[in-house]
Amino acid sequence: MRIGLDVGGTKIAALAIDNDGSIVARVRRTTGHGEKEVLTSIIGATEELLESASAPVGAIRHIGLGIPGLVDAQAGTVRHAVNLRIGEEPFEVRRLLSEHFGGAPVSVDNDLNVGALGAAALLGYENVDIAYLAIGTGLAAGIVLHGEPRTGANGAAGEIGHIPVDPMGERCPCGQRGCLETIASGTALTRKWPTTNSQPAPAALFREAQRGNAEAQKVKAEFIGGVVQAVQMTALSIDVDLVILGGGVSELGEPLLTAVQDELRARARESHLLATLNLADKVQLLPPGSAAAAVGAAILGREKTDTVPSLKDAQGPRAEGLGSKVSPLQNV
Amino acid sequence: MRIGLDVGGTKIAALAIDNDGSIVARVRRTTGHGEKEVLTSIIGATEELLESASAPVGAIRHIGLGIPGLVDAQAGTVRHAVNLRIGEEPFEVRRLLSEHFGGAPVSVDNDLNVGALGAAALLGYENVDIAYLAIGTGLAAGIVLHGEPRTGANGAAGEIGHIPVDPMGERCPCGQRGCLETIASGTALTRKWPTTNSQPAPAALFREAQRGNAEAQKVKAEFIGGVVQAVQMTALSIDVDLVILGGGVSELGEPLLTAVQDELRARARESHLLATLNLADKVQLLPPGSAAAAVGAAILGREKTDTVPSLKDAQGPRAEGLGSKVSPLQNV
Repeated sequence: MRIGLDVGGTKIAALAIDNDGSIVARVRRTTGHGEKEVLTSIIGATEELLESASAPVGAIRHIGLGIPGLVDAQAGTVRHAVNLRIGEEPFEVRRLLSEHFGGAPVSVDNDLNVGALGAAALLGYENVDIAYLAIGTGLAAGIVLHGEPRTGANGAAGEIGHIPVDPMGERCPCGQRGCLETIASGTALTRKWPTTNSQPAPAALFREAQRGNAEAQKVKAEFIGGVVQAVQMTALSIDVDLVILGGGVSELGEPLLTAVQDELRARARESHLLATLNLADKVQLLPPGSAAAAVGAAILGREKTDTVPSLKDAQGPRAEGLGSKVSPLQNV
Repeated sequence: MRIGLDVGGTKIAALAIDNDGSIVARVRRTTGHGEKEVLTSIIGATEELLESASAPVGAIRHIGLGIPGLVDAQAGTVRHAVNLRIGEEPFEVRRLLSEHFGGAPVSVDNDLNVGALGAAALLGYENVDIAYLAIGTGLAAGIVLHGEPRTGANGAAGEIGHIPVDPMGERCPCGQRGCLETIASGTALTRKWPTTNSQPAPAALFREAQRGNAEAQKVKAEFIGGVVQAVQMTALSIDVDLVILGGGVSELGEPLLTAVQDELRARARESHLLATLNLADKVQLLPPGSAAAAVGAAILGREKTDTVPSLKDAQGPRAEGLGSKVSPLQNV
C-alpha cells in the first residue's frame, strides 16, 4: 500500500492506493502548526488511513509527502514553511516519520511538484513535460520534466508568481512591484472583488461578469490576462508540452479554462510567434475535486511499473465513501 | 578530430579539436544564404579546417553544427531560419553534410543551445544547470540541464525575449507589446542610443554614461533593468545554477557584468525572496572573444569521457594563429 499526504496550511488530504493502483482509503484532517504538531497530524492521518483500509503498519510500502516550503528532497527535510510555522532550521520530517512507522520508506517533495506529478498521472500523461499552474493564495508552477519534478538550484523553479510584469503595478509582499501574483491569484481577486457573503471572490466575480457587470468584466479580464501571461511564461522559458490549471481558483472549472483559451487565441491572432506555439490547445483544467497533490505524493518515488490511480478514482465528489477498490486502473 | 561550426547570419565560426581536446584549427568565413549556399559555406569551412590541420577527411570523428532557426535535433533538420533564408520546409542539413564527408557522424542543434554547452565547458562547469543569456540583435537564453541542451516542446525553451514585461511598453515585431527584448537587446540600445560613428551603440552608451551624461545613464539603467529582469526570469522559472551573459552586447565586458550585479544586489536589498536567491553571485560573463558556440558545436554528442577545450584555448584574441596544440586540457 502506498500512502500519499498533501500537507496544506489548514488541511491534510491523504489517500492510500493499493498495489493495483486503486484508491483504498481517503482522509482529510486539520493540520497542526509547528514542527511537533505537523508531525502529529501527519502521523494521525496515516493511522486513520490504515484503520479505514483495515491494514497493519506492515502493509505500508511507501509514504509520500507533499509539503509547502523549501524542501530538500535528497535530505528529506523542509524549512521555511511559513503557513506550517516551520522556520529556518531544516525539519527532518522524513526521518521522524519513517521511524514512527517502523522504518517505512518515506519521500518528501514540494507540494507543487507533487501536484504536477499527480495531475499528470490523473490526466493520463506519461513522458510529457508539464507545468502545473497552482492559482491559489499565490501563483506558482510545479514542473515535471521527463517524469521527474524539477526543483531547481534554489528550490525556486516555477516561482513565476514573483516575476514582475508591470513597472506601474502594485507592490508585492515579496518586496518587488507588479509581480504576476499581484494580478493572477486568489488573493488578487479577493482584493479587487471583495465579497460580503461567504461566496469565494472568484465565483462571485465570474458570476457578475457573466451578468454583464462592466466593472466585473474588467477585473475578470485583468485576472485572465495574468493567467495567460503565466501560461506564456512557462511556454517561453521551460517550454512544456502541457500547462494544467489547478489550485483553489481552478475550482471555477470550465468558465476559467474557456476564458483562458479565448484570450490565448486572441493573442495568437496578433502574434505570429504565439500562433506558432498554439498554446490554447496545450492548456488543460484539473477537474475540480481532484486530489492531485495527494495522488502525486502517493506515487512519489514509485517504480515505473507501478500502477497509479486514474482520474475516475481520485476526483473527490465521485470518490466519497471509499474504502474498497473502486475502479479499473490506468498505467501512467 | 571533432569539428564545431557556429553558423551565424553573416559569419561561420568553425574550429577543430583533437582527441586530447586541444583546438588545432580555427576558421571564419562568410555565410551563404539559401539552403544550397548555406550548405556550401559549411562544407567550405570544414574543408578549410582540414587543410589548416593537415588532416584527411577520414580524420573527422564528428561534425557538430549550431544553427539559428527551429532545429529538430532528432531529425537533423532546420527550418524557419530567417537570417539564413531557410524557409518552412525542413532542410536536411545533417544528412547532406554527412553524405558529403563520407558518412561522418553529424549533430545539429540550435545556436543558443550550443552556445550554452560551449560556455559551460569553457568556464569549466560540469553537471550544473545553465542559462546562457545571448544579448545580441535579440534576447534569448540557451539552456543546459544536467549537461543536456533543453529545446522544449516547441523549440521555444529560453525564448524569454518575447515575454511581455510592460503593458505600456513598445510594440515588438513579434506582435506583442512590451516584450523583454524591446528593453534588453542590442537592437533596443541602437534604437534608444543611435550612434553616428562606427562605434557600436552599447559601447557608446556606456562611455557616455560613464562620463556623466544623465540621458545616457537613464537609457543604460533601463537596459540593465531589462537584463536583470531576464536573469530573474530564468531564476524563477527554470532556476538554473548559473546565468552566463553572452551575445554581441556582452562584448562590453566587465562594465556590463558589474552593472548587472550591482542592480541585482540593489533589488535583493528590497526583496527577501531575491536576497535568498543570491543572484548576483550566480551571474558570470563569457569573456569577450570566446568562441562558445563553435566549442559547444564541437562537443555536441560527445562521450562524457572526451576532453574539451579550456577557456584559455578558445578565446579569440589569445588563440590567433592556431594550427598546433596550444595548451593543456580541461575535462568538462
